[in-house]
Amino acid sequence: AKPKVGYFLSNKKGNKDILEKLSSIKLSDIKSLPVAVTESTSVYDSIVTIFLENVGTLFVVENDTLKGVVSRKDLLKATMSGGDLSTIPIGVIMTRFPKIVCCTEDETVINAAEKIIENEVDCLPIVEILSNGKMKAIGRVSKTNITKVILDISR
Amino acid sequence: AKPKVGYFLSNKKGNKDILEKLSSIKLSDIKSLPVAVTESTSVYDSIVTIFLENVGTLFVVENDTLKGVVSRKDLLKATMSGGDLSTIPIGVIMTRFPKIVCCTEDETVINAAEKIIENEVDCLPIVEILSNGKMKAIGRVSKTNITKVILDISR
Repeated sequence: AKPKVGYFLSNKKGNKDILEKLSSIKLSDIKSLPVAVTESTSVYDSIVTIFLENVGTLFVVENDTLKGVVSRKDLLKATMSGGDLSTIPIGVIMTRFPKIVCCTEDETVINAAEKIIENEVDCLPIVEILSNGKMKAIGRVSKTNITKVILDISR
Repeated sequence: AKPKVGYFLSNKKGNKDILEKLSSIKLSDIKSLPVAVTESTSVYDSIVTIFLENVGTLFVVENDTLKGVVSRKDLLKATMSGGDLSTIPIGVIMTRFPKIVCCTEDETVINAAEKIIENEVDCLPIVEILSNGKMKAIGRVSKTNITKVILDISR
């Protein structure tokens, strides 16, 4: 069902204050640590990592460079294939560039919410661009971090 | 990493306006439709339903009554068991009462965010209590709905 969004139209002044507050919350304020595997890690071991680290998304990293992203949804899909999960490398099922949606830690919680909703992902890597032009994952921001913002700003 | 939460202390007045605004957003304003299976639906068919309906959580319903909740994480765990997913009924792996965390549609987005974060779940069933005392699932609210609120109130 489409959410009814009429509620936010009633108080334009309030919205301006809220916009100001939310614009002041940078991803560096709310980020979590990245959890990484390598391309040769098996799908099985990646699922184990998801549970042990209690995260929804893993980053695939080689030589300090972000190569891929794998969500719980990707892993669930992989389990449906019927293959031996301990022999399938995560590199086979991960999302690669240019399809990875990234952000930087100076972006605001509003930017992150926008990217998450528009691209239908659960989590964004927070990256730093290295001098060789490659991306290093320095954090992650998920719907969980954003849901916590709603709590923090109401307290 | 624990989020740094210092950012919300700087502007108490702004927080009061935000609290007022967020308290005015009820779950009836932002809810999505529930997606249901029955206790005898197989784990395999439940995973197929998760993908076809593009949701993160399924409700298990019998005779219009909410019996259980199953998340993508529960399904991923079930696939690790190595059993034949098409013969395991979802009733075996679902979360049951009293462990299900519910909400009603007159609760606010703040209440829902609180329950989601404290109980570490992705989604809450929105229920109506029937005259026989049982719960009917009339909607769902997830971290996605809450992330959309951040966007809506900043526009």
